[in-house]
Amino acid sequence: MKYKLGCQLNYSIESLSTFVFNLRIVDTEHQKILQETLDINPEKLTIDDYDTPIVENRYFRVNVPAGKRLELSYQATVDMCHFYADPNEIAEVQPAQLPVETLHYLYPSRYCQSDRLSRLAESEFGSLEPGYSRVTGICNWIFDKVKYQYGTSNPHTSAFDTATERIGVCRDFAHLGIAFCRAMNIPARFVAGYAYGLEPPDFHACFEAYLGDRWYLFDPTRLAPQNGIVRIGTGRDAADVSFATIFGSVNMDKMDVFIDYISDADSQEVPESTTQAIAI
Amino acid sequence: MKYKLGCQLNYSIESLSTFVFNLRIVDTEHQKILQETLDINPEKLTIDDYDTPIVENRYFRVNVPAGKRLELSYQATVDMCHFYADPNEIAEVQPAQLPVETLHYLYPSRYCQSDRLSRLAESEFGSLEPGYSRVTGICNWIFDKVKYQYGTSNPHTSAFDTATERIGVCRDFAHLGIAFCRAMNIPARFVAGYAYGLEPPDFHACFEAYLGDRWYLFDPTRLAPQNGIVRIGTGRDAADVSFATIFGSVNMDKMDVFIDYISDADSQEVPESTTQAIAI
Amino acid sequence: MKYKLGCQLNYSIESLSTFVFNLRIVDTEHQKILQETLDINPEKLTIDDYDTPIVENRYFRVNVPAGKRLELSYQATVDMCHFYADPNEIAEVQPAQLPVETLHYLYPSRYCQSDRLSRLAESEFGSLEPGYSRVTGICNWIFDKVKYQYGTSNPHTSAFDTATERIGVCRDFAHLGIAFCRAMNIPARFVAGYAYGLEPPDFHACFEAYLGDRWYLFDPTRLAPQNGIVRIGTGRDAADVSFATIFGSVNMDKMDVFIDYISDADSQEVPESTTQAIAI
Amino acid sequence: MKYKLGCQLNYSIESLSTFVFNLRIVDTEHQKILQETLDINPEKLTIDDYDTPIVENRYFRVNVPAGKRLELSYQATVDMCHFYADPNEIAEVQPAQLPVETLHYLYPSRYCQSDRLSRLAESEFGSLEPGYSRVTGICNWIFDKVKYQYGTSNPHTSAFDTATERIGVCRDFAHLGIAFCRAMNIPARFVAGYAYGLEPPDFHACFEAYLGDRWYLFDPTRLAPQNGIVRIGTGRDAADVSFATIFGSVNMDKMDVFIDYISDADSQEVPESTTQAIAI
Repeated sequence: MKYKLGCQLNYSIESLSTFVFNLRIVDTEHQKILQETLDINPEKLTIDDYDTPIVENRYFRVNVPAGKRLELSYQATVDMCHFYADPNEIAEVQPAQLPVETLHYLYPSRYCQSDRLSRLAESEFGSLEPGYSRVTGICNWIFDKVKYQYGTSNPHTSAFDTATERIGVCRDFAHLGIAFCRAMNIPARFVAGYAYGLEPPDFHACFEAYLGDRWYLFDPTRLAPQNGIVRIGTGRDAADVSFATIFGSVNMDKMDVFIDYISDADSQEVPESTTQAIAI
Repeated sequence: MKYKLGCQLNYSIESLSTFVFNLRIVDTEHQKILQETLDINPEKLTIDDYDTPIVENRYFRVNVPAGKRLELSYQATVDMCHFYADPNEIAEVQPAQLPVETLHYLYPSRYCQSDRLSRLAESEFGSLEPGYSRVTGICNWIFDKVKYQYGTSNPHTSAFDTATERIGVCRDFAHLGIAFCRAMNIPARFVAGYAYGLEPPDFHACFEAYLGDRWYLFDPTRLAPQNGIVRIGTGRDAADVSFATIFGSVNMDKMDVFIDYISDADSQEVPESTTQAIAI
Repeated sequence: MKYKLGCQLNYSIESLSTFVFNLRIVDTEHQKILQETLDINPEKLTIDDYDTPIVENRYFRVNVPAGKRLELSYQATVDMCHFYADPNEIAEVQPAQLPVETLHYLYPSRYCQSDRLSRLAESEFGSLEPGYSRVTGICNWIFDKVKYQYGTSNPHTSAFDTATERIGVCRDFAHLGIAFCRAMNIPARFVAGYAYGLEPPDFHACFEAYLGDRWYLFDPTRLAPQNGIVRIGTGRDAADVSFATIFGSVNMDKMDVFIDYISDADSQEVPESTTQAIAI
Repeated sequence: MKYKLGCQLNYSIESLSTFVFNLRIVDTEHQKILQETLDINPEKLTIDDYDTPIVENRYFRVNVPAGKRLELSYQATVDMCHFYADPNEIAEVQPAQLPVETLHYLYPSRYCQSDRLSRLAESEFGSLEPGYSRVTGICNWIFDKVKYQYGTSNPHTSAFDTATERIGVCRDFAHLGIAFCRAMNIPARFVAGYAYGLEPPDFHACFEAYLGDRWYLFDPTRLAPQNGIVRIGTGRDAADVSFATIFGSVNMDKMDVFIDYISDADSQEVPESTTQAIAI
């Protein structure tokens, strides 16, 4: 199943500024980049690439002098060939057996204070059947109890706030899902991506939980079909995977994000909601 | 129904210290003080009484010089003649009709941040039938979801914390009940008192909600029969009705609290749990 | 020194709504109301007055049916005859000697968590000379370290946040000043008022501290001359003295606030900054 | 300069439990392990090693059945050969030039909410001369304004709390130093270690800031000489480098930590405070 996606970001630079971008998609077994271009104006800027090990973010840094206008244009064509599984077959893994490199995703992070949510999680989800369906239960809880409303949270809002304030955006939904999973000893990590069908188009946030033998994708917002999410990168929470971290004084003049489905007779997948478990 | 109750508090005074005590019970239509003594050693200390209007706390202030030992002994006999009502007959009162002097008890306070709990309250209690039973529903929620455990909270713990951390003591239970009521536009206030049957004996905290035409008593801890609670005073939250607010450096050497039931052939009431609504 | 002041507030009412307004000025020894009108449309609405004892707020409640448009017009002429004193003559009062009715203003409240700011206050202000000048020191600290910027805080922002985040509006400045004073055992309360010279015109917030034998006015924002502040009311913090507390669903269509100085040959006062201590 | 160090940890296991330990020291250019033993009883337990890339923690996991007693004994001899430099020669590195792998240490983490402390940091440290001495200024600020007192904080306490509450232990001092550095765009990370001279002996926490071309060590507690700190590992904050993360129900029966200086005629270093910059 193919998507064409990308973004256009324009900034006016007031003082010498450093951008760390994280907006290119990753190339994995189940997400193959067919073609990709990144154009940056002015052209002569130096780009420092930084692909992180394990979490596979493709950061790059650009330094832009004062007075300039930065125009960034990214587009890619990707072939998604998701891993699907029967949710009923997917078990939770005890800390005793978890792959050691997943243990970090049990620890609390800036926006996912699982240490403070442990009793709440135990009370709400402790009696659910362990396994994939428990994480589905967590997502259902969030969908039912937290209102999605643009502009209701801010960059400081964390899972601890959202657990009580019950309102937020995709980032807050993801943080709460992650915090609840970690509180139940299920490794969970933040996923930034492009999402087909999001209206209006924007970067999207959801999360992955480690179950069975891999990271499965969950989106408590239900705003896009799961197989319409193309991954940019992962991290402990939004602090790790901002599409742009900026040091300096700039104004954003334009931000367009797009993702289109390319119909393809060869693929059996189409963008649609599924009750299957899905992994990228 | 008669109780004999009181306390013994001893302190060693390191520097000139000011105590504001709030431990004498109030005399109301339904709570008649039959006899009362307050002994303070050293005897020659000046006692400034301060009975607050409306909320009826009987504060008193004592200044004690450095090096002294303060010994306070209070005991009273009280005749409780509770107002009982059928819970099914007690309605909520809309802000449009509430007595104006109760409106303050809709506002958030230090430990009851009802402004931040409004969506949670609406989500959990918004669909309950309005009336006395809704407050019962709030108390049941707290009893079911919050663990009572001594030593798990501290003087800074507030309803916003307890809503998520789900553990605390009577003061935290009361704060959460108050915050939820206010979030539902039901006036609620903190009650400090002596409680028959509390084990170990201690000062107790619960709350009152304004319903129908008066303040009804609620205790989400279920640690004492409702008609075993003798009121010291009320306030917006624990900040108002500490049994002792101390300015200076002192050590508490002793704190004994007691309350005994005096069996009385004339009274039809005995200390027992009730499903009736009860007011002091 | 005379001012003419008032406000025009218009609302569209979506559902039956209850307003509790607190926007009329108080009449005190130093603030004499010469003339006052309050017009409310539709005219036939019932107005419940509620003047609080001690804190002297002149609340009034109005219930407005769905579909109506509420138009409120208030204007008053006031003669301010401030109490002035030499700051060097004004001492702090120890808890041992404070009037008992001021003790409540030592306790923490929703937006002024003095209990959590005690060590910060002691560290920053503990070595300052006790007295009026210490509160001036607190105000200077706030003015120097906290940036005034419209739109940077929200109704949940408290002194605990502002102490660290160092940005806010008049309400946040007042809350921080109050919290610091209480942490130093100086009673402090929130003041809502009209303020001459405020640009753009709006309701204003500052605070009073109890020193010597009365409540003195402090405004850490320095946005208006102290003798240009006309008091609406006081409370523990903003939770008590909102100009409009609204139950129901309404839209504000208009909000105009004004205050004009009436030049007056008979008065020796003119609106101006002063280094004198000032009380209303 | 040689140290012999180690620990003895005993636990009673109530239910099948998983331990992730992080208490072995790392072997680096400036910290050479001469000899090391790790004894675990019962002997037949499986030990899963997990050495993290980059941050160099030597985690290991042990699963212990219910009813057992776990006895862990670790000891090592280490030769420290610190890198010393003249503080005046060490510059800050701008985000534009920072090694890309240090950028993550600019982001906020669970206990170091640098995003919420940016204005405070700018206000307190923004006018200090950039460079090593600015971080010294941050440490001095913490040492001067935060009281070190055992038992005053808890596992949930974060830099945001400590900035205001001004009391805590080594972990809190480190978190605040890290948060301030990150808020000033200086990469900073948490260091767990053994510390010579600590009284009573315990695991220690301090931090490193990236300056010039490496990570320099800072300890705002001043409780141990800087060259007496032997590094176990580093992380974003304490969430990453707990000496023991435990899943299950256990009781700690014993915890002894020791570190002894081995006098050595061949080394020019002795444990002592220094005004030099120091790196491990």
